[in-house]
Amino acid sequence: MNKDIVRYVTGRILMVVAGLMFFPILVSLIYGEPLRYLLSFLITAILMVGIGFSFSRTKMNTHKLYAKEGFIIVALSWILVSAFGALPFVFSGDIPLFVDAFFETSSGFTTTGSSILTDVEALSHSMLFWRSFTHLIGGMGVLVFALAVLPSSDSESVHIMKAEMPGPTFGKLVSRLSSTARILYVIYFVMTLVVIFLLWLAGLPLFDSLLLSFGVAGTGGFGIVNGSIAPYNSAMIELILGIGMLIFGMNFNLFYLLIHKEFKQAFKNEELKWYLRIVGISIVLISANLVMNAIPLLTSVRDSFFTVSSVITTSGFSTALFEQWPMFSQIILLLLMFVGGMAGSTAGGLKVSRVAILVKSGLAELKRVVRPNRVVTVQFENKMMDEQELNKIYSYVIIYAFIFIITTLMVSFEAPDFISAFSTVATTINNIGPGLGVVGPAGNFSLYSPFIKVVLSFIMIMGRLELFPVLILLSPNTWRKRI
Amino acid sequence: MNKDIVRYVTGRILMVVAGLMFFPILVSLIYGEPLRYLLSFLITAILMVGIGFSFSRTKMNTHKLYAKEGFIIVALSWILVSAFGALPFVFSGDIPLFVDAFFETSSGFTTTGSSILTDVEALSHSMLFWRSFTHLIGGMGVLVFALAVLPSSDSESVHIMKAEMPGPTFGKLVSRLSSTARILYVIYFVMTLVVIFLLWLAGLPLFDSLLLSFGVAGTGGFGIVNGSIAPYNSAMIELILGIGMLIFGMNFNLFYLLIHKEFKQAFKNEELKWYLRIVGISIVLISANLVMNAIPLLTSVRDSFFTVSSVITTSGFSTALFEQWPMFSQIILLLLMFVGGMAGSTAGGLKVSRVAILVKSGLAELKRVVRPNRVVTVQFENKMMDEQELNKIYSYVIIYAFIFIITTLMVSFEAPDFISAFSTVATTINNIGPGLGVVGPAGNFSLYSPFIKVVLSFIMIMGRLELFPVLILLSPNTWRKRI
Repeated sequence: MNKDIVRYVTGRILMVVAGLMFFPILVSLIYGEPLRYLLSFLITAILMVGIGFSFSRTKMNTHKLYAKEGFIIVALSWILVSAFGALPFVFSGDIPLFVDAFFETSSGFTTTGSSILTDVEALSHSMLFWRSFTHLIGGMGVLVFALAVLPSSDSESVHIMKAEMPGPTFGKLVSRLSSTARILYVIYFVMTLVVIFLLWLAGLPLFDSLLLSFGVAGTGGFGIVNGSIAPYNSAMIELILGIGMLIFGMNFNLFYLLIHKEFKQAFKNEELKWYLRIVGISIVLISANLVMNAIPLLTSVRDSFFTVSSVITTSGFSTALFEQWPMFSQIILLLLMFVGGMAGSTAGGLKVSRVAILVKSGLAELKRVVRPNRVVTVQFENKMMDEQELNKIYSYVIIYAFIFIITTLMVSFEAPDFISAFSTVATTINNIGPGLGVVGPAGNFSLYSPFIKVVLSFIMIMGRLELFPVLILLSPNTWRKRI
Repeated sequence: MNKDIVRYVTGRILMVVAGLMFFPILVSLIYGEPLRYLLSFLITAILMVGIGFSFSRTKMNTHKLYAKEGFIIVALSWILVSAFGALPFVFSGDIPLFVDAFFETSSGFTTTGSSILTDVEALSHSMLFWRSFTHLIGGMGVLVFALAVLPSSDSESVHIMKAEMPGPTFGKLVSRLSSTARILYVIYFVMTLVVIFLLWLAGLPLFDSLLLSFGVAGTGGFGIVNGSIAPYNSAMIELILGIGMLIFGMNFNLFYLLIHKEFKQAFKNEELKWYLRIVGISIVLISANLVMNAIPLLTSVRDSFFTVSSVITTSGFSTALFEQWPMFSQIILLLLMFVGGMAGSTAGGLKVSRVAILVKSGLAELKRVVRPNRVVTVQFENKMMDEQELNKIYSYVIIYAFIFIITTLMVSFEAPDFISAFSTVATTINNIGPGLGVVGPAGNFSLYSPFIKVVLSFIMIMGRLELFPVLILLSPNTWRKRI
């Protein structure tokens, strides 16, 4: 392995993220906060620049970067960025324990939105800003952002983008990779600005509009008042957020197609059809189930629309206490947690395309058994899937299941009941936010021990990076010396 | 489809099972029960012979039987046999509702052992006998039994045996199939006799020895006193049952090898190694967890040995109220429910070989990601698995997951909590018996509505036949007229 390039790129990432701390410092100044807030960010930024600078001065024989290095750089950067990003919370005293701050920051960058805070309103403005700002940075990718702003060669970038972008396939929009990164980020920021503007129009203060929009854009879900979105009690705000989340849960390549007026190609997208179908069916089923349980029709539709949108896009904002909904609705939500958003979006989960291909290949096998003499193939996006591609998806799900089971066993020692344990893992590995039971919208993750909090932080990063980068980083094989 | 042969073979099966009612009639006579018990069986047997005889008189143009007909015959026979087998319970009044009796009999033939009875001791001897006897018949296969006793051609039998024998692969022991069936049944009965004898030696009455042995042989699990095995309160009986279940959860081909002194080949079996390893690790983990929860070491080991043996072999006898164990232990049991016994045994579940291959292919994918230039293959039983074979297993698991999810959603309307709903489906589709929560060892399935009871009966039959036969029977495509 080429350790030099790992050190070099990781160092540059640290410096870029240090630069981003300019924004919370600005917030601190605007609100005239006590000096310790400004200093917390400043000291952290100086630390990061110092370490990043010394890393990036590594002398290299070659700039070549292979898949393995790409994975390691991405995993390492995410862990480091979460660790350093946690420091301002600790220095300022707003979250005194490092483990708690690390959990909160991992949750932020991975756009999970799970929190250990029992009273989020106790945070200062700058800390609240930084907490939500990590959603915005993490959503599209910390490293993709770095690639967009730094000069770099394609041979460096391709494996990093592959490792950081969610979804089973990876498509370049234009021939140069750093241009692709820039285009993606421009679309991303423009759409975020639209959401900020709409929320502000709907009557929210600018500060709230900004922070909630960061959560929508990254499909994060950190609330900024106790009770997430419920206290605003505004159908209009819920509608803007709900539609916003659904849009940010879509593949960004589609927006690129729309900009270039290739409407036909965009709407032919099979994953999009599956995504909209799953959302529609879930809303209908849950609304019906809520009405059956004597909840008025309008409330049922409103709550189920917002909750389905929030859960399938793995955002995790909440308006209703869905851990108190009838079990049928809860199981639908649990299923949506695993589906997640579309590939190439900011959402987590298994991704709609993987689930659709799994469903299709299950149906194909059924057809094969009924008619053994016919050739049955699995097609997705008008392309035949060969068995090797299918196997990649199956193996991904198997490894995902391993990690899920082992983590659930660990959590079972501390969770009070099965649904809490199960949904704690489901909500962290899929980067959602709240779960069911004690980690539902009314609860939080403060009940867990420091050990489990660290485990869950890693699970969030694993989930965000689609497992392999972190597994490769942790593999002893990676660190064995070659002769 | 050749409907004539379906009718012909199904008719013969019905007559064979009618003949088996001789045994409960004998029991009824021995215990001098009221005449209605004897008559209940007699009338049912006459009905079955009548219908079976008229079916089997079908005139056929050809005796050819393809895979599809094999699947349909097996599914149809199992449903019919469960429906007719339920009649004595209804006629005698011991289980007055047909739906309840159908659930109980499906549970018996599929060797599940889930019960709707709140007081099993209220049944007469002949009814108790019939209930457990269905375990013995269903364990090795109703149709395999018929093949063993009836003259039939190999071209008829091969697809039936394939459809009824559990496991991803199917191996003939000797060149003639009906001889294979006979050899399997001889091994099966001899081993059952050994268990009967040992239980009797250990001090159980002959009647109890017989019925419990039927449950062990079929890895069924109907208790014959309230509280399953706990009331006997004998370590010796638990040891005999525990080891017995583990042995009947093994592939019967191994016993054939042992008889022919091919010890080396038998002990080289990879699935066996996985099976023993999973059992061992589970016992250690659960014992440790129980000790941590202040249960004495000896009790912990004794209870965890018996429970692990009972759950992984999908028997379902119980000594401890494991629904009250700490959650870690419960999750281990839940995982064992899905693993199940070895292929080619009388046990249910996904089967150890499928799980082992899934684990191995997950690890292979990890290796592939870490070292993209190496060729990594999945080997099982010293044979390389090609991608088509792997896909068969993946697709099986996907279809299994579909059915599981849909059934859980149905059950969620009536179960009081998530773990009860989830384990109700896990325990029925995997043919285990008790679940967790309200369907744990201290509970039963009487809380469910008739509709859910019928659904669960079908799920048990689906699970026993490894999904495809029932799915093909229910597929509209099967019944569409061809031009």
